Amino acid sequence: MAHFDLDTFLRTQQARVESLLLERADRLAPSGAPPRLVEAMRYSLLAGGKRLRPVLCLTFADTVARASLVSPVSGDAACALEYVHTYSLVHDDLPAMDDDDFRRGRPTNHKVYGEAMAILAGDALLTEAFVLLGDGPEPVRGALCRELAVASGASGMVGGQVLDTAEDRPAVLDYLVRMHRLKTGALIRAACRMGALAGGGDAEALVRAQLYGDAVGLAFQIADDVLDVTATREQLGKPAGADAEAGRHTFPAVVGLDASRRMAEEQVALAVEAVRPLEGEDGPLAALARYVVERKS
Amino acid sequence: MAHFDLDTFLRTQQARVESLLLERADRLAPSGAPPRLVEAMRYSLLAGGKRLRPVLCLTFADTVARASLVSPVSGDAACALEYVHTYSLVHDDLPAMDDDDFRRGRPTNHKVYGEAMAILAGDALLTEAFVLLGDGPEPVRGALCRELAVASGASGMVGGQVLDTAEDRPAVLDYLVRMHRLKTGALIRAACRMGALAGGGDAEALVRAQLYGDAVGLAFQIADDVLDVTATREQLGKPAGADAEAGRHTFPAVVGLDASRRMAEEQVALAVEAVRPLEGEDGPLAALARYVVERKS
Repeated sequence: MAHFDLDTFLRTQQARVESLLLERADRLAPSGAPPRLVEAMRYSLLAGGKRLRPVLCLTFADTVARASLVSPVSGDAACALEYVHTYSLVHDDLPAMDDDDFRRGRPTNHKVYGEAMAILAGDALLTEAFVLLGDGPEPVRGALCRELAVASGASGMVGGQVLDTAEDRPAVLDYLVRMHRLKTGALIRAACRMGALAGGGDAEALVRAQLYGDAVGLAFQIADDVLDVTATREQLGKPAGADAEAGRHTFPAVVGLDASRRMAEEQVALAVEAVRPLEGEDGPLAALARYVVERKS
Repeated sequence: MAHFDLDTFLRTQQARVESLLLERADRLAPSGAPPRLVEAMRYSLLAGGKRLRPVLCLTFADTVARASLVSPVSGDAACALEYVHTYSLVHDDLPAMDDDDFRRGRPTNHKVYGEAMAILAGDALLTEAFVLLGDGPEPVRGALCRELAVASGASGMVGGQVLDTAEDRPAVLDYLVRMHRLKTGALIRAACRMGALAGGGDAEALVRAQLYGDAVGLAFQIADDVLDVTATREQLGKPAGADAEAGRHTFPAVVGLDASRRMAEEQVALAVEAVRPLEGEDGPLAALARYVVERKS
């Protein structure tokens, strides 16, 4: 049996996401939004990146529906996830937060447009995610709004960012796992669940999407921490070793590099297990789970 | 005929809003949100204020449904509007934006919790608004999400804030009206339309809510600018004359105090006209429209 060709699959799906994003970003200016705001939003939204969340969403939708969906619902869900992810990066990079000058190899949003505009561009990206989700008559859109909002809010992504920047955060594994389950895990899980919802999945598909998303989210964050130790600046598009320098608590710092890698592998195995009944052996979701820990940037 | 008793009505409705907000704010901590984040969100959310947007929303819902609704949909819609309004105040007050130290007579959010937490508390309030709207099976919730998101996003409230802070903004009436229609008008209009939607209103009710909301929104902003010239610090809970000092363009500065007052009165007349077929003579919506320009703070 031919091995699943992840490289081709990933390139195809990423190109699909770029085109879905561009289509929606092109609607911002005619809607009456100020041109400078639209420019700042597009600067960060269309800056490339792995597009992991929308790719997971579309792959789940296709897998569950057993067809490559052309439904506007899955496209809107995929793009809404990337809008929210992008807003979180723009706000995290602000001087009052992580104070980062570079992101994906380019100056961060506030370095180009100023701090006020970066705050507003982030606010607008978050809000426009819900414009996308609300933009149609399909009844599933209400559930998608709720899924995205819960994952991104006070008990999801924003809550995780608060835990990550708390001055009295303990350098212990429990706290680190809890923080990342909120900060990055919640949105990755939502990406999988929203894909399953958009694809018309039943309750079992939703549970499998959740199990897979939880495992892939944690594996992703561990791999990120490992890459910060082992990768080069060129591979990352930002200075390597930045976590240690900023005094951030990471998996390698708390449990060591080898144990971190083992934990990531365990999570990948859980994820692969969870989706086997949905896609059979050696499908795209299993390949994506492996990619998350094997990527070089 | 007895004159409609606005004072009692307003006090009753505001108490109703406080209790709806408190009920929902009390659900934040058990949801798993970090306590410090919940505290920062509650600090600004439960700081009083006129609660104009939720009161307009509930009054429209009651008027259109011809009953005092106890539906969770109208309560969620009213609170979601106040969440979004509150987040916009928290972000507008930030050092990188208007850099205000006081709001409603108390230190602003970032003065108490720091800049990073104020950014995150604002982000969380915005996001939790959509959690509220998505929290139930009623099909109207999708339309409410879309209404709120469009009003708050790049071609609504955030867009208006960008126009207001643009360095090259011209001191002409057209620009001022366009800016305020986005910055404050869009959300006030949404409050009215969301109330009509939550109350089960038909297409005519929605159009009347929109006409009323547009007029009241503009009247509200003109009255705000007039108050900044004529009221005292004690009445406003913040320094009076702050607009002029900050070089902000205001209606009195652009067209004079008398013309500003006349414009506000004209808008009130339009608003009263728009809702007469919904509530008859001398109803609460007409009284609210008059209150918007006659208030002292």
